[in-house]
Amino acid sequence: MYLFKAYLLRCAYLIVIFTLLRSKATAQQTTTDEQFLRSVFDQALTKSEAYHWLEHLCLNIGHRLSGSPQAAKAVDYTRRMLDTLHLSKVWLQPVRVPVWVRGEQEIVRIHIGEHQLDLPALALGGSQATGPGGIEAEIVEVRSWEALDTLGTQQIRGKVVFYNRAMDPTLLNTFQAYGGCVDQRVHGASRAAKYGAVAVLVRSMSLRLDDFPHTGSVRYDTLYPAIPAVAISTRGAEQLHKLLKNGKNARAYIRTTCHFLPDADSYNVIGEIRGTQHPEKVLLVGGHLDSWDVGHGAHDDGAGVVQSMEVLRILKSLGYQPRHTIRCVLFMNEENGLRGGITYAEEANKRNEVHLCAIETDAGGFTPRGFSFEGDSEVIDRLYSEVKKHEKLFEPYGLTFGRGGSGADISPLKGQKQLLCGYRPDSQRYFDYHHSAADVFDTVNKRELELGAASMAALIYLIDRHGLDLRP
Amino acid sequence: MYLFKAYLLRCAYLIVIFTLLRSKATAQQTTTDEQFLRSVFDQALTKSEAYHWLEHLCLNIGHRLSGSPQAAKAVDYTRRMLDTLHLSKVWLQPVRVPVWVRGEQEIVRIHIGEHQLDLPALALGGSQATGPGGIEAEIVEVRSWEALDTLGTQQIRGKVVFYNRAMDPTLLNTFQAYGGCVDQRVHGASRAAKYGAVAVLVRSMSLRLDDFPHTGSVRYDTLYPAIPAVAISTRGAEQLHKLLKNGKNARAYIRTTCHFLPDADSYNVIGEIRGTQHPEKVLLVGGHLDSWDVGHGAHDDGAGVVQSMEVLRILKSLGYQPRHTIRCVLFMNEENGLRGGITYAEEANKRNEVHLCAIETDAGGFTPRGFSFEGDSEVIDRLYSEVKKHEKLFEPYGLTFGRGGSGADISPLKGQKQLLCGYRPDSQRYFDYHHSAADVFDTVNKRELELGAASMAALIYLIDRHGLDLRP
Repeated sequence: MYLFKAYLLRCAYLIVIFTLLRSKATAQQTTTDEQFLRSVFDQALTKSEAYHWLEHLCLNIGHRLSGSPQAAKAVDYTRRMLDTLHLSKVWLQPVRVPVWVRGEQEIVRIHIGEHQLDLPALALGGSQATGPGGIEAEIVEVRSWEALDTLGTQQIRGKVVFYNRAMDPTLLNTFQAYGGCVDQRVHGASRAAKYGAVAVLVRSMSLRLDDFPHTGSVRYDTLYPAIPAVAISTRGAEQLHKLLKNGKNARAYIRTTCHFLPDADSYNVIGEIRGTQHPEKVLLVGGHLDSWDVGHGAHDDGAGVVQSMEVLRILKSLGYQPRHTIRCVLFMNEENGLRGGITYAEEANKRNEVHLCAIETDAGGFTPRGFSFEGDSEVIDRLYSEVKKHEKLFEPYGLTFGRGGSGADISPLKGQKQLLCGYRPDSQRYFDYHHSAADVFDTVNKRELELGAASMAALIYLIDRHGLDLRP
Repeated sequence: MYLFKAYLLRCAYLIVIFTLLRSKATAQQTTTDEQFLRSVFDQALTKSEAYHWLEHLCLNIGHRLSGSPQAAKAVDYTRRMLDTLHLSKVWLQPVRVPVWVRGEQEIVRIHIGEHQLDLPALALGGSQATGPGGIEAEIVEVRSWEALDTLGTQQIRGKVVFYNRAMDPTLLNTFQAYGGCVDQRVHGASRAAKYGAVAVLVRSMSLRLDDFPHTGSVRYDTLYPAIPAVAISTRGAEQLHKLLKNGKNARAYIRTTCHFLPDADSYNVIGEIRGTQHPEKVLLVGGHLDSWDVGHGAHDDGAGVVQSMEVLRILKSLGYQPRHTIRCVLFMNEENGLRGGITYAEEANKRNEVHLCAIETDAGGFTPRGFSFEGDSEVIDRLYSEVKKHEKLFEPYGLTFGRGGSGADISPLKGQKQLLCGYRPDSQRYFDYHHSAADVFDTVNKRELELGAASMAALIYLIDRHGLDLRP
């Protein structure tokens, strides 16, 4: 761009929008709320620690699968960082976690006639290994459960099933596209084992065509043998599809040495600012400390971890004295067991703690677009309409409210009649990185990360100040 | 994330929103428009050529300053690609462009006592050189015009003025933050020369703290000597600021060898689908082919170029027969002369061509957020209210309409009583890359790029179908 004038005109656009929205908002909300929200965003955009924390978590610690030495380091580091915020209380909540280790670099080698081709591969988390000898078998490709069932035992027994249903690029929200495919990864092994398959290859859950395999959890149905399950990159999947389409019989040699170790001790890391009027009522914001064992776990969910911590830092820095207790929970073991989330909910129920609202941030550190809310059927309409009253205040920040899912870690809190909330950043880039070696620090933009933390701090402030009437 | 159920719940959020918005839109618009928009987005997200075109422009051609061999290659390549679309007409519009060359790698060496420090630097585009001998002088830092004027001739004569007013991170739209600083880059040299300065150093226009200097144009006031003007990285600016704050007298040795060559022949590249009912009325979409001479010019404005071409590809692929002529213009020389934009407007006026609407895409290939519209004071209210009627159809795609600036290349069309439009993607990351070596292909996300092209194709379709009544 060249002309300064053109820039000023561009800026005028935003100023006009801003002014219009502010005047609208004033009619409904006190000026104080608007001013406080502005101070929350200013604080986040000028004094945030989130990006530095994330840098340490990614570059000095690295990926952090439950039970790994890095996960222990992440517990220690985030606890120490929360200690620097002079909160009312910071503590570790013990959680027993599964320990799965990947073992040696996986091999997926395709043999067609005399040719062979190695595909970039990662064993699925929690999957059974082939063992050091590997296995070799003919490959059969399917894109749907119907196709699998049609092939049946006769054409599947003794073979490797290759699941190649791609994410639908026409869905604007990429989580929806993920939702349309991830059943292959989670249930594919057992459904193929039912027909006698010896292993499965699963196309990575990504919209990009590249060489990164994306791991993630597999769930075995105890009715069938637990067979090895391996993700291959999207480009690898396309290559394999072409080979198979040419009608040649292709065989796969697969070698994985992943295995479980005994469960280990780990922790949820928790910090809180105690409420001045209703300390027993909690407003929760959280993400998960563990990650898969590749990349840095930067977007999934280092971003959510540091944003949750940053929410407390922002409110503390502004000298805000909350009416209710505001708590940051860094959950352990979201990726392969959810033990942190389950333990947290059990302990909270034992102590009869009431959660006014719980927010989970586990969709990446991208530009904020809004929040989605869910709740018990008895309370959702009433509570959502309460929280919806605050939406206008978020318009200047480009955020909207909707009804929908929240997050895995807070899902065990569903028994409490309350509102659960998912923080919703822009979803376009998330699955480029998710569960792969591509999920690294450099892919996180500092401002986008900070704007997310500010958005959640703002929502928590508004609920704390104006309340959500929990009792009918 | 772990639980598949959680994903489904997340997805439900979007589906609910989508359904609500669709039902609202139906009340105001025909179903056909909604369906057509959906097909535009589907086409862009599944069949787009934009990302491949951008890859070639960035990786095979590279940066493309006006008059450079790469700019000529970009003209040739984009013309050939437009030819593959089987449009009604593709042509080159001759434009004489200035030719400025950077010369040797710049040196900005700070001397304090016996220490010296080299700062990452880029001469500003069009700036005067120090010449091969360089210049050395004491540095004086200012953050405002008032500070400069207060120092005056007495404290500035013979010195290097260091402009160190940073972009304001609290402004949500980064273009607004840029607008609050870029006056230092554009006018700083002449305003310092007025007081006898021998050169200026300008803090880069970026919100990141890093080592990339960001270039951009300087404008000399002919009343004063044209003195050398050089951008230094933001981290360099912070370092220099600290040194100067410690009260030590710092001197800068600056060496630049940039210079102008004679003007050269170049071209705007234009393609169009001729209108079936009103071929003389034009709907324009455009970006600029030239870039600064560092990085790949990927976001600025390779993205805008391939999106503009993609708009035509989408409409052509859908077999759309427009009522008005739909034209893609790839402007030359936006960065340092605007000759392409000026030539285009002159020729259009000569031919009495009427533009119903002109859209410029020159704010990066990021997730779409909306459009801003401006126009002649006689027409803006009426035309904007016409176009605003279509806004509801864009809500499912997360897009909003506002009034505000459009773009530099189309600004010379302002004399025509029409609507000018700026495409507005998310702005958070733009100035991380803008005019620097960091503006490379890998920073562009394929889906975000495609969604932008679809957004503009959708707007052009709606205006073509429903018209904008130009005559009062």
